[in-house]
Amino acid sequence: MEILTHEIYFKTNGFTEIHNITPQIQEILTESGLADGQVLVSAVGSTGGMTTLEYEPGLVNHDVKEVLDKIAPYGKDYVHNRTWGDDNGSAHLRSALVGTSYVCPFVKGHLLLGTWQQIVFIEFDTRPRDRRVIVQLMGMVSRNT
Amino acid sequence: MEILTHEIYFKTNGFTEIHNITPQIQEILTESGLADGQVLVSAVGSTGGMTTLEYEPGLVNHDVKEVLDKIAPYGKDYVHNRTWGDDNGSAHLRSALVGTSYVCPFVKGHLLLGTWQQIVFIEFDTRPRDRRVIVQLMGMVSRNT
Amino acid sequence: MEILTHEIYFKTNGFTEIHNITPQIQEILTESGLADGQVLVSAVGSTGGMTTLEYEPGLVNHDVKEVLDKIAPYGKDYVHNRTWGDDNGSAHLRSALVGTSYVCPFVKGHLLLGTWQQIVFIEFDTRPRDRRVIVQLMGMVSRNT
Repeated sequence: MEILTHEIYFKTNGFTEIHNITPQIQEILTESGLADGQVLVSAVGSTGGMTTLEYEPGLVNHDVKEVLDKIAPYGKDYVHNRTWGDDNGSAHLRSALVGTSYVCPFVKGHLLLGTWQQIVFIEFDTRPRDRRVIVQLMGMVSRNT
Repeated sequence: MEILTHEIYFKTNGFTEIHNITPQIQEILTESGLADGQVLVSAVGSTGGMTTLEYEPGLVNHDVKEVLDKIAPYGKDYVHNRTWGDDNGSAHLRSALVGTSYVCPFVKGHLLLGTWQQIVFIEFDTRPRDRRVIVQLMGMVSRNT
Repeated sequence: MEILTHEIYFKTNGFTEIHNITPQIQEILTESGLADGQVLVSAVGSTGGMTTLEYEPGLVNHDVKEVLDKIAPYGKDYVHNRTWGDDNGSAHLRSALVGTSYVCPFVKGHLLLGTWQQIVFIEFDTRPRDRRVIVQLMGMVSRNT
């Protein structure tokens, strides 16, 4: 049984910009040599989101933004904004609703995702950010090799 | 320490149909002989949801549907639908919001859930599906037996 | 590799009252002596929520409540309420949407959270409750000490 903790870093532009981080996670998994287990993907910070989504332009560039704009619009006068002279209350609310961590099982070194299912980080903040995401593997090498 | 990966299969009818999969998960746990640990329950695909809910008819057949119809209505003209000649944009959005994986702790072979708390898979898609859900146990046999 | 299951208990007042439980979780982690791994935090019951949030008064006392009041208002005539002579249908719906479990990675005995990111339990129910939250650690002592 192994626990391996990695980090990935990337730059974001804000306002519910969606990043497909599946390739980086699969690469870390492949290089680990682990066969069976699970990967915990966790965003550091309170204005990002972690979930799965079909990563296609319609959902990514329009539909997800539209739904969340209805739930917690960006321009609104949140008490958070008034208290801290900030403008990202909406980002905090979206993050709390969507969640910041996701756990994916893997078998024989492959993530158990659907064909149209990708692991995505969503940047809810209102400015460009340097993001850090924890990718922690827990698993074992195959007993049959 | 053991990692055991199982799968469960079932048929769904779509449109936010809610399935209580707690009995199957408890059965897999019981048969594993594991005492303490956790079970990761993960839906394969981008139009399903995994969460916990009191599995009773009012919530299951009406209230959950009503809330999600307000957030992401089924009939709407999503860009996803226009792009792919599809009609399930709402299902993708609901899945991303609710999430597709859930982790439950167990002790002495029993899931640590409330009396009125069940693990449910929600079929958000707009047609019947054959569903696959991963049930991955991580844990150990009791050290006191 | 160790699995350690703890429980924390606290009293709540209801109506989307937000509790910062990060200090208790960090304390359990510190006392465990584990270095690298993850902690599963899971609420027992179907009317609570578990997520991360910047624990500051604007979000905690106002903004989160406002957003969820729009999605699933407390006073509404849910079928759940009519069926069971109950008044907490809204609480069940909020719980299913926000989720009841959260997994946080840790390294060298420290939770990998952002500076403004706290682990919170949200009491969605409509009355004071005695709450039980499972805190399950999975990890190993450092190999370099």
